[in-house]
Amino acid sequence: MQDKSSKNIEKKPCLYLFPVPLSAGDVRAVLPEINIQIVSEIKYFVVENIRSARRFLKKCNSDIDIDSLTFFELNRHTAAEEIAGFLEPMAAGNSMGVISEAGCPAVADPGADVVGIAQNRGYKVVPLVGPSSILMSLMGSGFNGQSFAFLGYLPVNNEARLKKWKIIEQNIVRFDQTQIFIETPYRNNKIIAEMTKVLSASIKLCIASDITGENESIITHSIAEWRKRQYDYDKVPTIFLLYK
Amino acid sequence: MQDKSSKNIEKKPCLYLFPVPLSAGDVRAVLPEINIQIVSEIKYFVVENIRSARRFLKKCNSDIDIDSLTFFELNRHTAAEEIAGFLEPMAAGNSMGVISEAGCPAVADPGADVVGIAQNRGYKVVPLVGPSSILMSLMGSGFNGQSFAFLGYLPVNNEARLKKWKIIEQNIVRFDQTQIFIETPYRNNKIIAEMTKVLSASIKLCIASDITGENESIITHSIAEWRKRQYDYDKVPTIFLLYK
Repeated sequence: MQDKSSKNIEKKPCLYLFPVPLSAGDVRAVLPEINIQIVSEIKYFVVENIRSARRFLKKCNSDIDIDSLTFFELNRHTAAEEIAGFLEPMAAGNSMGVISEAGCPAVADPGADVVGIAQNRGYKVVPLVGPSSILMSLMGSGFNGQSFAFLGYLPVNNEARLKKWKIIEQNIVRFDQTQIFIETPYRNNKIIAEMTKVLSASIKLCIASDITGENESIITHSIAEWRKRQYDYDKVPTIFLLYK
Repeated sequence: MQDKSSKNIEKKPCLYLFPVPLSAGDVRAVLPEINIQIVSEIKYFVVENIRSARRFLKKCNSDIDIDSLTFFELNRHTAAEEIAGFLEPMAAGNSMGVISEAGCPAVADPGADVVGIAQNRGYKVVPLVGPSSILMSLMGSGFNGQSFAFLGYLPVNNEARLKKWKIIEQNIVRFDQTQIFIETPYRNNKIIAEMTKVLSASIKLCIASDITGENESIITHSIAEWRKRQYDYDKVPTIFLLYK
């Protein structure tokens, strides 16, 4: 396989972006074998959480000598000045890896800052294939995949969020654009209830929960239909998609 | 692996969405092993192109008896009435697969229609992990992954496209949103030249080309810097990303 793959370990230092499974189970169910091969060769990592990164690496390959690795922790507590120093091993010729908590680094997850610095310095950045709940929910929704927007979290402030629903409805029509967003899992039911109240009956809502997990479910109905349905998505990682 | 995976073949009929490699090489470099296992069990497929779907299946598993499979072709020539009939094997209890030409079905590719019909009929839809040039270029750009929009192709009409650049610049600021789009590959250089002319010097442009291929390159610079650079992206599949 090595000689056929385009993802052989490069000779010049690269910043590899490693997706991480979204749910329990064998990493090989959601990651290509090449990811495991590359991650096994890297000694320096920028990670969202050291403990979970170690756990991920052990699951990838139990032969990895975790104690020989260097980890730099990148999360919302990390100062901007500190991040610039993280890539010093690359200046010395070493490839590095970015590992987030779940899903794809730098997409709805920390990592974009460190990738931006690598881009500024002219380092080669190599994203690898892996699970993205945003992309997989879009695939499964039946909604427009030629035009879509991911909005992250909606405003917490009630008034601001009510305004946001208006913009979302406008953008669905104006840009013919699927609108995708997430919510803090313990507020999932609340936000669904709000949507069934404030959105037009004909708008379609896809609720995608526990993507790649044992209880994965991706269900699309009109708001009118969701009004009549029983649901309970609280505390389950869930993505919401809206389209006409 | 089977018992640990959340993607065991389901007992009730499912519509599986199979991503396809974006470039030549071993399919296992970009697809998890479970995809190969599942695709090997399916007898009915909705595909963008029958010939390339057969080639993909042979590369996944040379033991698959291609002649025993049924293919329904879904592309821009397929009539809407016809699509509704494609899922009849599911009514008879069979799982089906959707295979696009390259990348993820239903994302910047046909497939959304047939997924929408499956959703309407209450069938379980199961997206699988695979390469998406949109997602991978976003990961590698260093741009905002908490808020982004994929716009598909920009207008071909010059006047309409010049207006679109204005909206794109506005949306970068208004929604703090990474803007992602594609161009017909033989027009790549032309669209880059246009961007260096009409966009603000400080806007950042990431050009991501030949994702997962041998010449993969993901390079971010300001428009001011791109003005000074030599480039040639013509005829190479390329994604463009803009951000502040």
